[in-house]
Amino acid sequence: MVNAGVIGATGYAGAELVRVLAGHPQARLAAVSSVSFAGKPLSSVYPAYYGLCDLCCGTEEEVLQKSDVVFAALPHGLSQEIAKKCHDAGKVLIDLGADFRLKRLDEYEKWYQVKAVYPELHEEAVYGLPELFRDEIRGKKLIANPGCYTTAVPLALVPALQAGLIEKDGIIADCKSGVTGAGRKSTQDTHYPELNEGMHAYKVGGHRHTPEIEQTLRRFCGEEVTVVFTPHLLPVNRGILATCYAHLKSGTTLEQLQQTYEDFYRREYFVRVLPQGMRADIHHVRYSNFCEIELHIDPRTQMLIAVSAIDNMGKGAAGQAVQNMNLALGLEETAGLTALPPAF
Amino acid sequence: MVNAGVIGATGYAGAELVRVLAGHPQARLAAVSSVSFAGKPLSSVYPAYYGLCDLCCGTEEEVLQKSDVVFAALPHGLSQEIAKKCHDAGKVLIDLGADFRLKRLDEYEKWYQVKAVYPELHEEAVYGLPELFRDEIRGKKLIANPGCYTTAVPLALVPALQAGLIEKDGIIADCKSGVTGAGRKSTQDTHYPELNEGMHAYKVGGHRHTPEIEQTLRRFCGEEVTVVFTPHLLPVNRGILATCYAHLKSGTTLEQLQQTYEDFYRREYFVRVLPQGMRADIHHVRYSNFCEIELHIDPRTQMLIAVSAIDNMGKGAAGQAVQNMNLALGLEETAGLTALPPAF
Amino acid sequence: MVNAGVIGATGYAGAELVRVLAGHPQARLAAVSSVSFAGKPLSSVYPAYYGLCDLCCGTEEEVLQKSDVVFAALPHGLSQEIAKKCHDAGKVLIDLGADFRLKRLDEYEKWYQVKAVYPELHEEAVYGLPELFRDEIRGKKLIANPGCYTTAVPLALVPALQAGLIEKDGIIADCKSGVTGAGRKSTQDTHYPELNEGMHAYKVGGHRHTPEIEQTLRRFCGEEVTVVFTPHLLPVNRGILATCYAHLKSGTTLEQLQQTYEDFYRREYFVRVLPQGMRADIHHVRYSNFCEIELHIDPRTQMLIAVSAIDNMGKGAAGQAVQNMNLALGLEETAGLTALPPAF
Amino acid sequence: MVNAGVIGATGYAGAELVRVLAGHPQARLAAVSSVSFAGKPLSSVYPAYYGLCDLCCGTEEEVLQKSDVVFAALPHGLSQEIAKKCHDAGKVLIDLGADFRLKRLDEYEKWYQVKAVYPELHEEAVYGLPELFRDEIRGKKLIANPGCYTTAVPLALVPALQAGLIEKDGIIADCKSGVTGAGRKSTQDTHYPELNEGMHAYKVGGHRHTPEIEQTLRRFCGEEVTVVFTPHLLPVNRGILATCYAHLKSGTTLEQLQQTYEDFYRREYFVRVLPQGMRADIHHVRYSNFCEIELHIDPRTQMLIAVSAIDNMGKGAAGQAVQNMNLALGLEETAGLTALPPAF
Repeated sequence: MVNAGVIGATGYAGAELVRVLAGHPQARLAAVSSVSFAGKPLSSVYPAYYGLCDLCCGTEEEVLQKSDVVFAALPHGLSQEIAKKCHDAGKVLIDLGADFRLKRLDEYEKWYQVKAVYPELHEEAVYGLPELFRDEIRGKKLIANPGCYTTAVPLALVPALQAGLIEKDGIIADCKSGVTGAGRKSTQDTHYPELNEGMHAYKVGGHRHTPEIEQTLRRFCGEEVTVVFTPHLLPVNRGILATCYAHLKSGTTLEQLQQTYEDFYRREYFVRVLPQGMRADIHHVRYSNFCEIELHIDPRTQMLIAVSAIDNMGKGAAGQAVQNMNLALGLEETAGLTALPPAF
Repeated sequence: MVNAGVIGATGYAGAELVRVLAGHPQARLAAVSSVSFAGKPLSSVYPAYYGLCDLCCGTEEEVLQKSDVVFAALPHGLSQEIAKKCHDAGKVLIDLGADFRLKRLDEYEKWYQVKAVYPELHEEAVYGLPELFRDEIRGKKLIANPGCYTTAVPLALVPALQAGLIEKDGIIADCKSGVTGAGRKSTQDTHYPELNEGMHAYKVGGHRHTPEIEQTLRRFCGEEVTVVFTPHLLPVNRGILATCYAHLKSGTTLEQLQQTYEDFYRREYFVRVLPQGMRADIHHVRYSNFCEIELHIDPRTQMLIAVSAIDNMGKGAAGQAVQNMNLALGLEETAGLTALPPAF
Repeated sequence: MVNAGVIGATGYAGAELVRVLAGHPQARLAAVSSVSFAGKPLSSVYPAYYGLCDLCCGTEEEVLQKSDVVFAALPHGLSQEIAKKCHDAGKVLIDLGADFRLKRLDEYEKWYQVKAVYPELHEEAVYGLPELFRDEIRGKKLIANPGCYTTAVPLALVPALQAGLIEKDGIIADCKSGVTGAGRKSTQDTHYPELNEGMHAYKVGGHRHTPEIEQTLRRFCGEEVTVVFTPHLLPVNRGILATCYAHLKSGTTLEQLQQTYEDFYRREYFVRVLPQGMRADIHHVRYSNFCEIELHIDPRTQMLIAVSAIDNMGKGAAGQAVQNMNLALGLEETAGLTALPPAF
Repeated sequence: MVNAGVIGATGYAGAELVRVLAGHPQARLAAVSSVSFAGKPLSSVYPAYYGLCDLCCGTEEEVLQKSDVVFAALPHGLSQEIAKKCHDAGKVLIDLGADFRLKRLDEYEKWYQVKAVYPELHEEAVYGLPELFRDEIRGKKLIANPGCYTTAVPLALVPALQAGLIEKDGIIADCKSGVTGAGRKSTQDTHYPELNEGMHAYKVGGHRHTPEIEQTLRRFCGEEVTVVFTPHLLPVNRGILATCYAHLKSGTTLEQLQQTYEDFYRREYFVRVLPQGMRADIHHVRYSNFCEIELHIDPRTQMLIAVSAIDNMGKGAAGQAVQNMNLALGLEETAGLTALPPAF
């Protein structure tokens, strides 16, 4: 059994990690930490776990000592020192925060207003989106787990981009996120009566996931890509629906497009390219590591409209983190992630 | 007092009309009709009205006889004969259906698969989007009330288009609608457990509101316009959030854009151009005839991102229909429509 | 026009009062106050009001000066001094807080842990549940506006109790409240992802509305009454559903019961006793001052099951407060409160 | 591996069974049947299962042939013939319908208006509520799986009843159910805009689960019990919250009560008796087989208020059915049912 630990276990991503790890056949949850709830049982924060996972929140140090694999689910800036410690101790770190995602340190420092303290670790880190970069992840020790939008958008666009079916200019990603994406901390915006029956866009033109999406896309077209990315907040608990627009190269047919995606994801367990007539819906992938993709060509403008759906806490955070752990350790890639999503 | 009648009063648009008319200081609800619920009180379909509006559903003929102003809230195809009768009887008809919205009869016949029976009535009909075509509506007798998406999208784009700030090519409208837009008839898609906690796109690249949006836009740029329009279904009762993308002409600044919209809507009671920092949210306009517009320029691509929010049943249907009635009859334009939207 | 002012306008009850008063034909909103948002426009807290009600939050003193009628929507304990000032200045005070509801000062002091500073004002205050105590309210200057549960439960039980159809012992009120009842302040309990898809009871056996319910009931049976009252939190914005149980006296029939309620409320505009076969639903009374009552006899135990539904912010707070104002000032009792509730 | 089959797999209970069985370490889903969707893949009805469980719906006969254990999730009346066939073929039948739940055939025939065709099978059937009747279930071949309300209410009351702490007269169960309890078929009542933001009681004084609840309770007090049972429909997908009221015998203390429940459920994996201060919430048990119980004594009336929470589709249907299968076959009782409930 692998000993897994979670630093920042009382945030939503951390708590979902606990849930996924609890069902993993080859891992056991060795320790969890939290600054806000130090000394308290995890179930005092998440009563759904009461009697089932009553680990007490210890310190970061305790997690580092007791774990072979460390998951960090922290605000950006805080994972760098943890990465150093894991590196020195030879432990695997899966970082769910943003510290090691951007390869260009100037982009990281600009978008996150944090200094890159250990450039060599940034160099070493691999970007953990297995369907796109699997070979780089296997056996690695420092894995930057992508964000939710930055998983949903590239999965919807990369097959077309790599195959040269779409232009790299003029890409728009109009994304809709469930509320858990805003984190556990209650705010006026997430107070039930003010969010319920509402919907709005936020951080238009300035969300930090933008450079991360672009970084992934440019690896598949070999050039700079600039994306318009608009996130919206949706009154549901979980899910990202990404509606992506791109200019198709002249002559591309829907059959060709559909075939390209099906070929690209043919061996992927977690990505389902839907046949024409089925709709990608966040409802279908809740509490899971699956991704649905639905493809259209707007017949009057020759635009690709690719819609992807994931669970922001699953494939967009904790599920993908466990998939990365499996790859890093050489376990079965789907271990712990095969439960059927609920139908309702 | 104006005698107002509603044909198709038991559908959602019809029922909302009843509610709005019930609060109108110069109109009284003279008669309602329904095929499905003939002979039954309206409150047997909508118990919220029990004891307050217990009119029985009569026939179309009864509505025509008793009303000075007729509202028709019917599936497309069914309003043509009603329009003929109203025309012959000299009555005002506000048609909430799609029959008289498209000026090009070939477009109407192609998108709706219905034959235009009285071309002269199509000719006579005016398009009832008051903020854009007020002068055409005043005093008219046949008014085609726009659909919900076709109100939200043009309101978000026309000021920039008319001012020549955006290109007419490459416009995308990514729209999110509340469930009442799908009508009163229950279906598997709108069955609570399957819609709740979900979101999906529908009729991608083929929704019938597309030519109607384009018809409005081309009146403000003098040329053909082709729009990519993607509707989504959202688990809330009411609202349209329209996130509209367009290429800004080189050099346009946010200040210029904001000023253009504020000038355009300066005298409009129902449209609020939000100052920078406020967000358009369907939550803010529920149960009202108001429209919110929020403006952004994506700094890295020089795209306009204009977000508008309306209540699909208010400004997107019944509220606007009453606004049109007021204009047609020379009443105060805001009569019956000034209630504050609920804050929560 | 009556000049009305709201102290505590940025809480939910205060904000709803603003909305109701804005539609009142004989009142105008003269001033609002808020400690938390002093100097800020009300629309900065409730963007739904932007452009429509942009009054700035002033001080309590300003409200007192500018208003003929003062509404106080404050946490308990804070209305006593306001009542004194209103009394001295000869102004009408409608208090939406709990300070003047309980006639027995020892009960007040025990349940609220506050000292009754002006016993003579407590003596003077009338309890503003118009359907039960209309004659006491007319023309009065200090009115204690009931809470939400304390409106819904007595309306469901008093007709039977007064008619001697039920026993006074063994009454149970199992109540379900929408989230706005918990107020504007965001908490972990009202954070969207933790409340959505959940339901729980709270303050079981100890909610402060208990003695208030009992005070009303004992006025209709002439004896002490002890009620079991269990509130629950429900993932909807608005509404109280009160399911009330009482032992019927032997031989009472459903027809007799139904007739008793219909007679009791025959002249009441805001209470609808539903005919057998219709269901009381909070959905039907949202954004209104109406109350629905549905009556059953459990055939195997001879228990009365009376279900009432109100909007906790309407009949349960702001709507009733305006109804009380109308009575206090001799206006039409329904003025400003006749809008049809939305059907969906 | 056990071959398990589901008759009626496209209803909600059937579909949830498929999900639970898919995660069972010692069972495999051998066949499913559906009358409405014969010949179609299950994933055409539940797209969440697409690519993961694409079994086609066959006939009842096919399920009977291919399965060692048969689950029937059918409307009442239809399981009797299936039970006969299973009996003759020596197969285990877990019936999620109501046909074998009531031991008194006259009660069954009266409440369900169906004739008991094979009285000997009714005799043979055991009632599958493991925490109360485990020893009767082990190794049996015909198990009547309880309904949702009929699981939640007895679990909340039996410990006190058996210990003689409460009176058997005057028990009230005020229950709130998620919408999946109404089944997959869409109706006007479950149409999203009419259910959302609403709540109502239904089948007051006449729900068919009443005699089933009473049957369980009388086994623990040795006498006839008559219960007042009021179900309500709640705008959430899943969950039963049962708020149960009973008269405590004089002198019973909260400590005694709490201890009695903790002792009763000490060895139960699926029932968590919450310590004082924690709240039972349907949010905590979603997608699981767990049950939470919260205990109170109303200090002023000496009434027990016991609140239990389950997932109506989990412990209230499919989860419990699998628990029963495990018991019937001598497998580990918790097999396939140990996943942590989601925290949000």
